[in-house]
Amino acid sequence: MAEPTGDFGLIGLAVMGQNLILNVNDHGYTVVAFNRTVSKVDRFLKNEAKGTNIIGASSIEDLVKKLKKPRKIMLLVKAGSAVDDFIEQIIPYLSIGDIIIDGGNSHFPDTIRRCKYLEEKKLLFIGCGVSGGEDGARYGPSLMPGGSKAAWEHVKPIFQSIAAKVNNEPCCDWVGETGAGHYVKMVHNGIEYGDMQLICEAYHLMKEGLGLSNDDIADVFVDWNKGELDSFLIDITKDIMRFKDEDGKPLVEKIKDTAGQKGTGKWTAISSLDLGVPVTLIGEAVYSRTLSALKDERVRASKILKGPHNTKFSGDKQKFVKQLGQALYASKLISYTQGFMLMREAAKDNNWDLNNAGIALMWRGGCIIRSAFLGDIKNAYTNNPKLENLLFDPFFKKAIEDAQDSWRYVISQAVLLGIPTPAFSTALAFYDGYRHEKLPANLLQAQRDYFGAHTFRFLDEYADEDHPKDTDVHVNWTGHGGNVSSSAYLA
Amino acid sequence: MAEPTGDFGLIGLAVMGQNLILNVNDHGYTVVAFNRTVSKVDRFLKNEAKGTNIIGASSIEDLVKKLKKPRKIMLLVKAGSAVDDFIEQIIPYLSIGDIIIDGGNSHFPDTIRRCKYLEEKKLLFIGCGVSGGEDGARYGPSLMPGGSKAAWEHVKPIFQSIAAKVNNEPCCDWVGETGAGHYVKMVHNGIEYGDMQLICEAYHLMKEGLGLSNDDIADVFVDWNKGELDSFLIDITKDIMRFKDEDGKPLVEKIKDTAGQKGTGKWTAISSLDLGVPVTLIGEAVYSRTLSALKDERVRASKILKGPHNTKFSGDKQKFVKQLGQALYASKLISYTQGFMLMREAAKDNNWDLNNAGIALMWRGGCIIRSAFLGDIKNAYTNNPKLENLLFDPFFKKAIEDAQDSWRYVISQAVLLGIPTPAFSTALAFYDGYRHEKLPANLLQAQRDYFGAHTFRFLDEYADEDHPKDTDVHVNWTGHGGNVSSSAYLA
Repeated sequence: MAEPTGDFGLIGLAVMGQNLILNVNDHGYTVVAFNRTVSKVDRFLKNEAKGTNIIGASSIEDLVKKLKKPRKIMLLVKAGSAVDDFIEQIIPYLSIGDIIIDGGNSHFPDTIRRCKYLEEKKLLFIGCGVSGGEDGARYGPSLMPGGSKAAWEHVKPIFQSIAAKVNNEPCCDWVGETGAGHYVKMVHNGIEYGDMQLICEAYHLMKEGLGLSNDDIADVFVDWNKGELDSFLIDITKDIMRFKDEDGKPLVEKIKDTAGQKGTGKWTAISSLDLGVPVTLIGEAVYSRTLSALKDERVRASKILKGPHNTKFSGDKQKFVKQLGQALYASKLISYTQGFMLMREAAKDNNWDLNNAGIALMWRGGCIIRSAFLGDIKNAYTNNPKLENLLFDPFFKKAIEDAQDSWRYVISQAVLLGIPTPAFSTALAFYDGYRHEKLPANLLQAQRDYFGAHTFRFLDEYADEDHPKDTDVHVNWTGHGGNVSSSAYLA
Repeated sequence: MAEPTGDFGLIGLAVMGQNLILNVNDHGYTVVAFNRTVSKVDRFLKNEAKGTNIIGASSIEDLVKKLKKPRKIMLLVKAGSAVDDFIEQIIPYLSIGDIIIDGGNSHFPDTIRRCKYLEEKKLLFIGCGVSGGEDGARYGPSLMPGGSKAAWEHVKPIFQSIAAKVNNEPCCDWVGETGAGHYVKMVHNGIEYGDMQLICEAYHLMKEGLGLSNDDIADVFVDWNKGELDSFLIDITKDIMRFKDEDGKPLVEKIKDTAGQKGTGKWTAISSLDLGVPVTLIGEAVYSRTLSALKDERVRASKILKGPHNTKFSGDKQKFVKQLGQALYASKLISYTQGFMLMREAAKDNNWDLNNAGIALMWRGGCIIRSAFLGDIKNAYTNNPKLENLLFDPFFKKAIEDAQDSWRYVISQAVLLGIPTPAFSTALAFYDGYRHEKLPANLLQAQRDYFGAHTFRFLDEYADEDHPKDTDVHVNWTGHGGNVSSSAYLA
């Protein structure tokens, strides 16, 4: 048999898979393509892959035999059992040190499990987040690989060549061990949920509160896209606002307002609850989609429940639009702050060594949340790799302080006009909570101790011999009329 | 051996277990008590149980032998593996039709699993939510039993006699199959998280925004407790506000503002995300606890991040306090609305036949969230057992509409003053979203279709031959400059 010539194998010839293969081929690598329904391989070779160096495989065995060692085989199949099935089918043909890459939207606990499983067999595994949709896959996606570190040096040249570039830097770098790549991709998707929800709230305010036309709203997005909000999602929103149906009316206004979801936003919210990180904006964005889905019930509710008397903004609309842009920017900053806080905790929990500047760069181009803003985040973490919180970076501290008057005004108006802004509102509540040295949870702790003897601790400044620091204390709260004596404290 | 005389067995002699045994004994039943550390049984009999009819058991076998058939054995042990361990130890001694009751805070999927497991062995299982703390256990808890329906007739007389009573009705009724009892208890706890968070936000506004003293705030809670907010949690908050430390200063102000949690609020939020129900208020309450826990980071943030210039309310304080009460009431109504929406979906998902009026009655007395308000909820569901949503009940529809001006004003002021009110805010955002026939999710669907070809649907009113109702549609959004033709729609 001839020497194998394949540099890279890929299983799964849906559009994403086909485009990624063509992208790898463009960069001078020989790709071997396989699909469960083998006829699809032939069709691909005769059509999209015609005239390229792409090789087809007729079976898993054939695919593996056509690859040079260490073999690099990427799966782009549906997340879930299909990934495990293919892994089991591939394993018998592999040699020590060969690499399986899962490029699907797998849930990170599955990736952690698979990584461990394959490493026990002396194989290597990469769980790689891929973002950018079909176009990204074809011409430069954002790639977030994590798993077996030993695999990285073999995969790096291919991945960094096919990834999106920003200022010649590839939007792909090693994320971390085990499930780190898919975790970071999950948070990316959660942030995407948040960004989209924020844009929807801004649109809702302009449409209902200000009474702007879709073309007027498009102009606002064009304007925003020139400044600090410059991003892919703002850009496409402008196109959407201008897009007319056959009758000349804006198509977006005919679309049913029930948002679907693929689960990654939900996973992010659940992970934040599990890790105890207040990722409130993504949480509200997920809940907003679920509320939108209750369309029939909302239609009934709209006929029963009244809003405020005044639902139209009566002030300076042009000024309000500027303030709205600031509110959007400040809320977005909170969302990313929360996302990085979540990744910090996940890294602690899983023993990952995450590189925040690297993550910001991976998201800077290629993916759905790509934006100029992510360049500023990259700068913040490059200037100070140990930055505790994005809001502590001087650039962002100033940005949010400059925005806050507008932010507060916009939300107060939305509240009075009856236009729901759950994401704007939770972002501000987070900012105000986060910057409060003292929150009212002291009362909550007293309540828990009152009815359930759950104990509490004294503030450090009140700690003394009778009330030692970091010591759990219980008080008999129902002892009316008298002062509590120190003997009433049960440590 | 003598005929068994025991009516009810109980394992686990911590305070809750001891008090529940004494409560059952008070009602004329013979209780057999057992504990893993058997010396605790003797101590209990010689002390708290002295002079009662309570019998001790020296082993699991002894416990079972002393009980009349069908045996009723309640576990009040730590949730988790201890429950499974005891179940395994008890099974060998049981006969067909005997009943095991888990009275701990078990997670409902565990209860579903255990119920199925024991029913396969022709035994009966009840997962029973117990609320009310130590006092409730002793003198009348709220009990929420669910599981093997056949067990209910045997347990009902005992449970309904020991439960709290409101207008002579016991706060205990059959909840539903498998894990329904523990599910409803979990939602109870989630709502408890929400109620506590709302009270904390009201306290925060009065303390920081209005500058009221703790005694002034206590007076407000006394006043609120006379009206529609009449509840256990408002009542104890008044006590807490008045409670002085040895130096005469309010003890609550010395308590560290870092809230703990036992996980049931988190479980509720996660379940709502899994089922796709916007239970935003409990979600924000859980997140607020996690934010409070970041005390050290908040202290640093408080020295870096600025708030608004004006942080003191300058209007009529007395009027504001009245408006605040209305805001608290309206937000609380939203929280319960969301909780019942969640139980509705969980019932669908698990095939439970939940009785909303019965649940409201179970929560009406005995438990932590007991309140006059739950009497109104019971009335709403009694008047219309098929009520789709609490807000559609005429009493509550009027209540929230009467409250809404105050509610909006309070939140707008909090936003401007920089005092975080995440739960108030999300409640209002839910109300405004829920009563909107059209939400901006049409834009979100357009975005998803633009970058990921996720498709969308037309609003029913725009459905026609070219755009059939309930049909998935994809558009080539980047076709700039021209109108879309119907052939561009790919179903």
